[in-house]
Formats: sequence, C-alpha cells, structure tokens
Amino acid sequence: MLRTHTCGELRLTDDNTTATLCGWVQTIRDKGGVLWIDLRDRYGITQLLLEDGQTSAELFAISRSLGREFVLKATGTVIERKSKNPNIPTGDIELKVTSLEILNPAKVPPFLIEDETDGGDDIRMKYRYLDLRRNPVRRNLELRHRMAQQTRVYMDGQDFIEVETPVLIKSTPEGARDFVVPSRMNPGEFYALPQSPQTFKQLLMVSGFDRYYQIVKCFRDEDLRADRQPEFTQIDCEMSFVEQEDILNMFEGLVRHLFKAVKGIDMAEVPRMTYADAMNRYGSDKPDTRFGMEFIELKGTFDTIDMTSGKGFSVFDSAELVVGINAPGCAHYTRKQLDELTDWLKRPQIGAKGLIYLRYNEDGTLKSSVDKFYSEADLKAWAAHFGARPGDLMLIVSGDCGKARKQLSELRLEMGSRLGLRDPSVFSALWVLDFPLLEYGEEDSRWFAMHHPFTSPKPEDIPLLDTDLGSVRANAYDLVINGTEVGGGSIRIFNRDLQARMFSILGFSDEEAKAQFGFLMDAFEFGAPPHGGIAFGFDRLCSLFGGADSIRDFIAFPKNNSGRDIMIDSPSPISQAQLNELKIATVAK
Amino acid sequence: MLRTHTCGELRLTDDNTTATLCGWVQTIRDKGGVLWIDLRDRYGITQLLLEDGQTSAELFAISRSLGREFVLKATGTVIERKSKNPNIPTGDIELKVTSLEILNPAKVPPFLIEDETDGGDDIRMKYRYLDLRRNPVRRNLELRHRMAQQTRVYMDGQDFIEVETPVLIKSTPEGARDFVVPSRMNPGEFYALPQSPQTFKQLLMVSGFDRYYQIVKCFRDEDLRADRQPEFTQIDCEMSFVEQEDILNMFEGLVRHLFKAVKGIDMAEVPRMTYADAMNRYGSDKPDTRFGMEFIELKGTFDTIDMTSGKGFSVFDSAELVVGINAPGCAHYTRKQLDELTDWLKRPQIGAKGLIYLRYNEDGTLKSSVDKFYSEADLKAWAAHFGARPGDLMLIVSGDCGKARKQLSELRLEMGSRLGLRDPSVFSALWVLDFPLLEYGEEDSRWFAMHHPFTSPKPEDIPLLDTDLGSVRANAYDLVINGTEVGGGSIRIFNRDLQARMFSILGFSDEEAKAQFGFLMDAFEFGAPPHGGIAFGFDRLCSLFGGADSIRDFIAFPKNNSGRDIMIDSPSPISQAQLNELKIATVAK
Repeated sequence: MLRTHTCGELRLTDDNTTATLCGWVQTIRDKGGVLWIDLRDRYGITQLLLEDGQTSAELFAISRSLGREFVLKATGTVIERKSKNPNIPTGDIELKVTSLEILNPAKVPPFLIEDETDGGDDIRMKYRYLDLRRNPVRRNLELRHRMAQQTRVYMDGQDFIEVETPVLIKSTPEGARDFVVPSRMNPGEFYALPQSPQTFKQLLMVSGFDRYYQIVKCFRDEDLRADRQPEFTQIDCEMSFVEQEDILNMFEGLVRHLFKAVKGIDMAEVPRMTYADAMNRYGSDKPDTRFGMEFIELKGTFDTIDMTSGKGFSVFDSAELVVGINAPGCAHYTRKQLDELTDWLKRPQIGAKGLIYLRYNEDGTLKSSVDKFYSEADLKAWAAHFGARPGDLMLIVSGDCGKARKQLSELRLEMGSRLGLRDPSVFSALWVLDFPLLEYGEEDSRWFAMHHPFTSPKPEDIPLLDTDLGSVRANAYDLVINGTEVGGGSIRIFNRDLQARMFSILGFSDEEAKAQFGFLMDAFEFGAPPHGGIAFGFDRLCSLFGGADSIRDFIAFPKNNSGRDIMIDSPSPISQAQLNELKIATVAK
Repeated sequence: MLRTHTCGELRLTDDNTTATLCGWVQTIRDKGGVLWIDLRDRYGITQLLLEDGQTSAELFAISRSLGREFVLKATGTVIERKSKNPNIPTGDIELKVTSLEILNPAKVPPFLIEDETDGGDDIRMKYRYLDLRRNPVRRNLELRHRMAQQTRVYMDGQDFIEVETPVLIKSTPEGARDFVVPSRMNPGEFYALPQSPQTFKQLLMVSGFDRYYQIVKCFRDEDLRADRQPEFTQIDCEMSFVEQEDILNMFEGLVRHLFKAVKGIDMAEVPRMTYADAMNRYGSDKPDTRFGMEFIELKGTFDTIDMTSGKGFSVFDSAELVVGINAPGCAHYTRKQLDELTDWLKRPQIGAKGLIYLRYNEDGTLKSSVDKFYSEADLKAWAAHFGARPGDLMLIVSGDCGKARKQLSELRLEMGSRLGLRDPSVFSALWVLDFPLLEYGEEDSRWFAMHHPFTSPKPEDIPLLDTDLGSVRANAYDLVINGTEVGGGSIRIFNRDLQARMFSILGFSDEEAKAQFGFLMDAFEFGAPPHGGIAFGFDRLCSLFGGADSIRDFIAFPKNNSGRDIMIDSPSPISQAQLNELKIATVAK
C-alpha cells in the first residue's frame, strides 16, 4: 500500500509515530510561517502541518503549488495539535510532514466538493465522479451498501438461497414496456430485459428451492418521472408452502432488522389495514400514517351518512361523496391562503373543481364558504362530526368517490407537510391487504391485473370470477412506509387451470397465453408447491432510510429524465457495421 | 407455514411428536399391508409410513393414487424406524401418517428426478425447473450461494463497498462485441450492456471510494463455445493507492478464504510465475500446475541449447523450437497408441504436423521415430536431458515457437488427464505476472491491448513504447487454478497523457478516444489516485470449486450454444408495435 494509515485513523495514541497518508487536498491554509493542508479520503480528514524552521523550503514550495483535489502522498510524524478540533475523530492530532509527493494534480473542479455545493444538477451529473466525492452523496451509497449487507444477513439467516436469474429473457406484452436486445445469433429475434424475475422465481419454487432471494437489477422502459429510473434494483423474494400470514411475518422481520441494524431504530409491530379501509380513511392505498387527519365523510358510502343533502347546495346534492379532513390549528388561514389552497387543488395534476372550508374560530363561531346554504346548527353538527375544536380548519371536497378521495388525499399530504407532520426521521409502516385482483382499464375496455397475472384470488372470492370481477380480492399485500410503497407481493396461483383462466380474463387468447407463459403453466403440471413472495424497491427503501425524496441520490450513476447518462453520453448512435451484424435498421424519426 | 418441519429435520429426539411435512413424492413402496412414501424437499427426505390396521383405508386410497413428484402435505407422529437408514440424517425415524393432502398432482416427469438421470441435455434444458430438482444440480447452486456469501464476508471485512454500476451503458468498439438496447426515448440511439464495469469502477476510484466490489452480471455477444455464456457473472474489484503486490495479497486472501470457508481446504501460498516463464515451461499462460511434465527444449530459445541440428533431420533442422515432455511410465505405449496420439495432435483444432517419440524401454534401450537420424548416444543425451528413466516416454514437437508450444501444451494436458494427474478435487493455484501490454493482431495489422486499454505498462518499460511495443510488459496479473484462468486484473493508467497515448497506440484517433472515453480521461485530470483491480469469473470459479468442467451446471437458467433459452423460448420476435415505438426495423436475413 502507498499508505500506512487512512485519513480517518490516526489518534493521540499514535503520537510520535511515523505515518504515510494518501488522499485529496480538501483545503490549504497558508499563514506564511505555518501551512496546514486538510487531506481527505473516504475514511476522514487529517491535518498536515508544515512549519517554518521545521519543514524544508522544498516542501513549502511543493505545498504552495497545490490546489484543491490534488492527490497527495504525505509522510510525517504524528503530533498532538495545539488547537484541537473536537468535530472530527482525528482532531487531536496532525501530521508534521517530512515528505510530500504529488501523486496526481487536479484541475479546479467545476463545483465545490463540499457538503453544500454550488453545482447545479446538470453539472453534477456530468461530473458525477466529482459529485460522488461529496460527503452526503458518499454517505448515501455507504448507507445503500449497509442496507444490502444487512438484507443478506437477514435472508441468509432465514435459509433463503440467493439465485441469479437471467437478464436476457423474453418480451411479454403484459405490464410495462420492455427494453429489448436484438439477437445477432438469432436474426429478427429479441431478448427483453426483465421488469422483474417473477416467472423465474416461481419456477425456482417449482424446482423446490423453497426460499429464494436476490438483490437484482430490473428494467422498465417508461417515460420517466422524477423518481423513476429505467434500471432499478429490487430485493426479490419467494417462499414455498406459505400463506399470506407467513410472508407478512417474514418480511416484517426483514424491515425491522434493517431499521435496527442500519438506523438503530426499534420498529413497532406493523399495523395492517385493508385496501378498502385505506381508501376510505386516507383516499390512498399507500397512506402516510405518520399523522392522522383521517377522512371524515359528510355524505358517503363509508358510514352511509348524509349531512349535506337537501339544503339547496347542488354541488353537494349531486355528489356521490362529500368528504373532508380537519386540519388542527389552521383556523388562522386567511381568505388569501384558502384561495391559494383552492387554486393548488384545482391544478390539472389534481383536478379538483373546488374546495369548501369550514373554519372553527377560536371564539367558537363557525365560518364556511357554504354558509349561505347551511345553518349554524348544520355547521356545528359538521364540526362535531369532524371532532374539530376551536382553532381548527375543516377542508371538504366532493364529487365521485374515486376522484374526491384522490384529491383529498393530496390535500391531506399537503396539509401534513405544512403542519410539519411528515418528519423524514420518523418512520410509520403499514401493511395494506386485500387489494382488488383486477381493475378495469377504461381506455382499453378490458380488465387488468392490479398486481400481476400470477397473483391468486382469495379462495373465498373465486366464485366471484364468474359474476363480479371487480369485487374479487387478491391475496396481495403492500408494505407502505411514510406514504411510500416500499414493497409488494402476493400469494401466487400454482394451478394450471386457474392460471389459464386468469390469462383469459386478462384478454389473452389460449394461443397467446401458451406462447408467452406456456413454460410456467406447463411447470404447474409437474408438481408446483403453494408459494408466494414479495419484492422491495431497493432504491426507494434506501432513499427512505436516508430521509431523502429522490432515489437518484442513492444510485451511483443514475440517468436523467430522458433516460440519458450525461456523464458517459449514453445512449448514443452505433456503427452501421453493428446494425448490419444485428440485422436491424434505424427508422427515420 | 403449511408445515411444522422440513423433510430434513426430524430426528429420534422428536420421537412421538406430531409433525406436518410438505414436499414431493420421491418414491412409493407398496407392500400391500404397509406403504412407504419418501417425501423430498430441499432439506432432505423423510419416510412416511402407512400401515394396515393403523392407517385409515381412505389414506391408503389417497396414497395409491399418488405418482412421482406429487406435492403432499402430510401430518403424523414421529416414530422410530424398525429398519434404520444410516445414509440419510432422518434415517432413524419415519412419520406415521394421520392425514394426507395432495397439494398439487404431477404429470409423469419427462426424465428421472434422480442423481443419475435418463434425460438428455435438450430435454433437461427445456424442463430446467425439473432438472433443478435433482440433488447434484441443486447442490451446485447451493455451492454458488455459499461462494457469493463468503465472497461478501471477505470483501466486507476488508472495507470494500459494494456499489451497483449501471447495466444500460454505452457501446464501445474495443473488446468483444456488445449487446445493444435501442432507446425509445432517444430514437436512433442505443445503450450497450456492459462487458465489465471497468470504466465505472475506475471512476469510483476517482471518486475516492477507495475499495469497491460487486458481484455483477456482464454480457458479451460472442459466438458461444461450450463454456461461454452470453451473460456471465464477475466478482469485480478495485482498490486505490495500491501497487501490484497489494492486489495480489488482497485477492490471494479472498481465494484462500473461499477455499477454507466453502471447501474446508487450507490453501498453500500461491506461487508466482512470469508470463514468459509460463510460456517456456508449460506453453500456456494458464498452466495446469497440478502436475509437472514441464517442457524440455532440445533446441530452443529457453536455454539456448541445440541437441538436434546437423544430423540430417530437416524437420528439426528447420524448426525454431524442438520441445518435448516426458510422460512417466508410458513406455508401454504401442505403435497404435502412438499413432492415435499423433492423429489427435494433428486434428485441425491443434494443427501439429507430427509427433516424435522417444521411448525409454524398461530394459534401458531407447527407441525413437527418428532413430535413423540420431545415434543411440544422441538419444541417450536427450533422455538424460529430459531426466527420463526407464519406462518413460518422451513426446517431442517442433516448429515455430508459438505453435509448437501451443501444441505441446495441449498434449501435456492430454497426457496429464490420461495419467490421472488432473484430479478435480486437488487444487493448484498460480499467479501469472508480467504479461505483455500489447499483442499484434495480424488480421487487423494493428496492436491490441492484451488485457484492456486501461492497463498500465510497467514504469520501467515505458521508454519501450517508443521503440519496441511488443516488449512492453504490463502491470497485469492472472490467477490460474488447475489450468483455468479464474481471475485477472491490472494496475491501471491514471494519467490522462499516458491513457491518450495508449489509445493512440491502439489505433484510436483523438476524436474517437474523446468520443468514447473522454469522460474517463477528463476524470483523470481532476485528481485520480493510483489504482488497480481484478475481476474473477464467478461462474467459472464456482464450477472449479464444484469439480466440474462446464459453467452451465452452475447457472440456474443457462442458455444453449445458440444463445437460446429453450425453456422460455427466447429470444423471440417482438411485435411491429414495439419495433415502431423503438424506431427500428428488422432487416431480411
């Protein structure tokens, strides 16, 4: 090794020993007679000292030629610092330099390599290798490393076998769009990159592997949103001879282990809620349960109440659902603030038609935007129904069930944020259960699998497959933390006939089902065990643990929203010779 | 869980307890009044017992409807076996069945699910999920799992950080052929799948990550040989502030750890040999050192000897090299056997023009195919030079250095196999050092990087870059075990100018170098540390540890020699809609 120690290692107990360090110049302070260099590596920072009368003129000259981010090799004697720095572990000592070698000079970086940088997104992405030098970014990847390690510790301890499934697989039309790979050896044919190893992990169960896991790259060619990446990583798991309860317990165990091992947090038992309940109480199948502010219906299906009809307010009269939340302590909102909130809710992304408020003033009086329709007694009854107290603000939307709930869910999250109830260092987990098996796609006029086509219906709901597809519940579950779906899975179909029926419901002809998933249905005929599993979004889980919103900060070399890696400038054109070999051509845009 | 125990778990200490097992029917023995079922899962086999007078007629009826590979759930009482089976851990007990449920029936498998199967390669690949049920195949993947686990244990313990590098990267013309992925969002442009994460791991060193590793899928679109796969797995590693010696020690440590942890073998210190020595002594840069039979030159460059010229044998007179091996105890080879060996060596794959033998008979006389040219004194001198003893057989080839060594290397391996000197349970490792930096490609009339373009020349050989490219040695090393290259790496170039010069030597124009590797050369200007690394072929390492020749047996879902997965029938055509979205077209074959 070019060094004897790292830059995070020396202590007062090393006093008077000789050490050689390698690292990057973080800062130089030149006081004329004394010159200090902060030398940085992954492990920390150590102060180098050059002193008039003690250090040769030659070393001073070298030091004065240095710039930020130069790579140095410095040898010297460890001495106690006169002025100690209690903020860093090496703060008690410094290295009195006796030799100094520039291993590599550095041009001035295009942005500051500091915790707070002056570089914008684009420049930091182009020079991602410099951005990765910054402590917060490096710490994110160190967190990710620990998360992966600890995931394996837990899974290995539970007898799961890590099996690598193939990356070059087969394109299937169900689900998101595939990335495809032309096959040179099989002209005109293509591999696809896996959106998940779903069918392979099920085959491993048919093979008797019993417990499988993998931390694995998956791929989806979707138009990218802020927190989507074309390649992403899953913790992918499957177990045999299990029921839903077994999966919930096993993977609640994983998440609790990760919280304990990585963050030192003892996580409470994870509560459970049905999909129907989550939609009624939070308007979302991934509610943020760090705070309450649950939905209260003034007119609705939830508790069959109607406190709004027949008073001449046609908006409510014609609405399927009138539902609101009580924002505690928000009665002080001005008319202007309420208008802004209304405008926020009416943006196309949310699409509400309006927002009704009921303000419970500190003096006990009530004020509402609809008080010309409703008497004070009506409004008092509403406030009581909301459980509101003086100083609170009730926010109410109406319309058809689906839309109203979705809008109010957004408003609830917004109010939670405004009230500081969404602290990223607080973690609230929830199992959401009993998802619908199918959802109807209006655009395509057909049924889609809400989870995927391999999810089993609840046995007691199988008769509904003949009569009421929308009511069939799935043996499917999501793990939600802080309003983010971090994992989801299901008990699978393991019977050929039921699987074939499922494909038929999803609009596959027998031939299509056989061509695309024949191997799986065949496998079910050779002794397939009952099985189920789950997959966690690893990037998302890491960002959640790191208290960040974007997964991009937890990926070493992410792509931008156009799917480009601007550092390596990819994707890029390939040569005509490559196209010829692959027997493909590009088509004019 | 549907079971209380696995099929490998119950012991005599569980006597008289109730247990529920799940698994597959391995065998059924029906003796009329008594019926035994061997129930199998990943963990073992447990014998189920049904007995007249003790077991209900209904259970007997169910049992008699069973076939091989049916999936069962069986509950019963653990009892001591009358006739114990010492060959299996559960052999002292059996489960006296009180209830039996068929979880899933099974069609008759297309081949026997036994250690020795009757299924050919093709049928086993088509039904890979059944092949994976066989103990030897499952054990291979369990070995792979342990290898991965123990690799991580070692690397984590040495402060390496696991970082995931991207799979969708950029196509570069150097090296093997890339698999490419058309970008829908960037029409006319393509990603490439990585042949290795080489540039990314170097960038991580520039980022100061100091020690990186990853067990990672890589991809090469090559015409497949028996033991190549289009997707394969590497243990990929890189370290900063190191010299070659540090890498050798660190990764010799990894291999020794794996041998100890996975196979219980204390591995001797790994000897080292230069490339030049390996070529001279074994005719190969990956010699199998489980046995000696080293090359002895009768005329050559190695020890500047010439014991063959001027005796009228023009084949040797005109040869650059006359070189042989001494096969101990093979003097009994008949003329017919020698002719067969000669024919074997003359096959196009090896391409020798002939084979000269010198037989040292047990009675001390010598017999050679060239004894009309050479006197008994000549032949005696040869035999002495070979260190041969009565009963030995010397096998000699001649020609130009490169070809003769290659041919004799093949012959040496063949003789080693015939003599039983290549026991797969014996492991002999070797570091091969000081590889040439460049090799001349006659076909393309240009120099190629022997390792890759990022490998640094030995500092003392840098002046030779101006005068004698073929003599420049690289800071590159391979780890060879039993004649297989299991890992290779190098100390990297970390200086922009030297890297640019290397690209220029390899025939890149400045523009090409900048377009393809500009990001890396840029990175070298912002403070790149000295660094180096290594990558191990993980599939190969697993097959070596498993004592097998083919990597395919250590991959869960391998592809065949045409790059096809015949189980899922991939690659396959994709829809015109997909092609349209990607703005590509297939071209007639």
